[in-house]
Amino acid sequence: MAETATRAPRWLSDDEQRAWRAYLQATRLLAEHLEAQLQRDSGMPHAYYEILVTLSETPERRLRMSELAERTRSSRSRLSHAVARLEEAGWVQRANCAEDRRGAFAELTDDGFAALVEAAPGHVEAVRTHLIDQLTPEQVSQLQAISEAVLAGLERAGVDTGCPMGSNS
Amino acid sequence: MAETATRAPRWLSDDEQRAWRAYLQATRLLAEHLEAQLQRDSGMPHAYYEILVTLSETPERRLRMSELAERTRSSRSRLSHAVARLEEAGWVQRANCAEDRRGAFAELTDDGFAALVEAAPGHVEAVRTHLIDQLTPEQVSQLQAISEAVLAGLERAGVDTGCPMGSNS
Repeated sequence: MAETATRAPRWLSDDEQRAWRAYLQATRLLAEHLEAQLQRDSGMPHAYYEILVTLSETPERRLRMSELAERTRSSRSRLSHAVARLEEAGWVQRANCAEDRRGAFAELTDDGFAALVEAAPGHVEAVRTHLIDQLTPEQVSQLQAISEAVLAGLERAGVDTGCPMGSNS
Repeated sequence: MAETATRAPRWLSDDEQRAWRAYLQATRLLAEHLEAQLQRDSGMPHAYYEILVTLSETPERRLRMSELAERTRSSRSRLSHAVARLEEAGWVQRANCAEDRRGAFAELTDDGFAALVEAAPGHVEAVRTHLIDQLTPEQVSQLQAISEAVLAGLERAGVDTGCPMGSNS
């Protein structure tokens, strides 16, 4: 029979099912809540906040687009779209580097830095209140290990997790 | 000074920061990947899949809208929108119950059940491959406890996690 060649579905056990549903609901509700908080208080989506933070942490407040994609683990299309919108807002500017042909840079403007300084306290408070404060320090470590295992698995599977952009090779 | 009344931002420690960013990136990438899988293979968003599963697990394949909102932890507007789209697809039908004024029901149709049977093996395989298989059984338990703590915290904070709909009170 043809079915012998088809692997039977590996259904989840009751324990796995419970863990998966709790995870799914917690991540969705937390993401929706933090998104609403940032939009309401600072007029920006969470994804844009991540980009501003990442740029602000570099010495020159700028990164090659490929590097920014890797650090935020964004796909090429997702990042390009976000940076275009951040340019319109005057929070990021694109710059080309004459002596370096490896691609364009994204640079945090003074307005962008000011927007980040304004947004950060409220956002960090929300992250702390709804995630960190709910967990023991041990659970915070567990969450990091679990998240890193999932990320490593997605990368091994070839899922686009921010591969280099603008390469000439 | 007015500032004395303002609590200083409770910034994240380095460990908390690392855990938060790994969590943020893992959940986003996993959600994007599973969303793409379901859209590509079964033509439905993940949120609709959850509704079909939830209805399929009841004896009569139907639930009062308020109960469906609670079980999927959806807000009123989110659920109403999704059920309207599922009705258009012919996968769910709404029904009113004459002897029960506590609200309308959503009922899984035979077409909806068939769509779910078709979608489930590929989706469960993706969840297993990219989440469960990446973790030890102990980590699966940890993830459940962490997720339930976050959900309980959001509920205590009054975040809309699927409160009753259609009540006459």
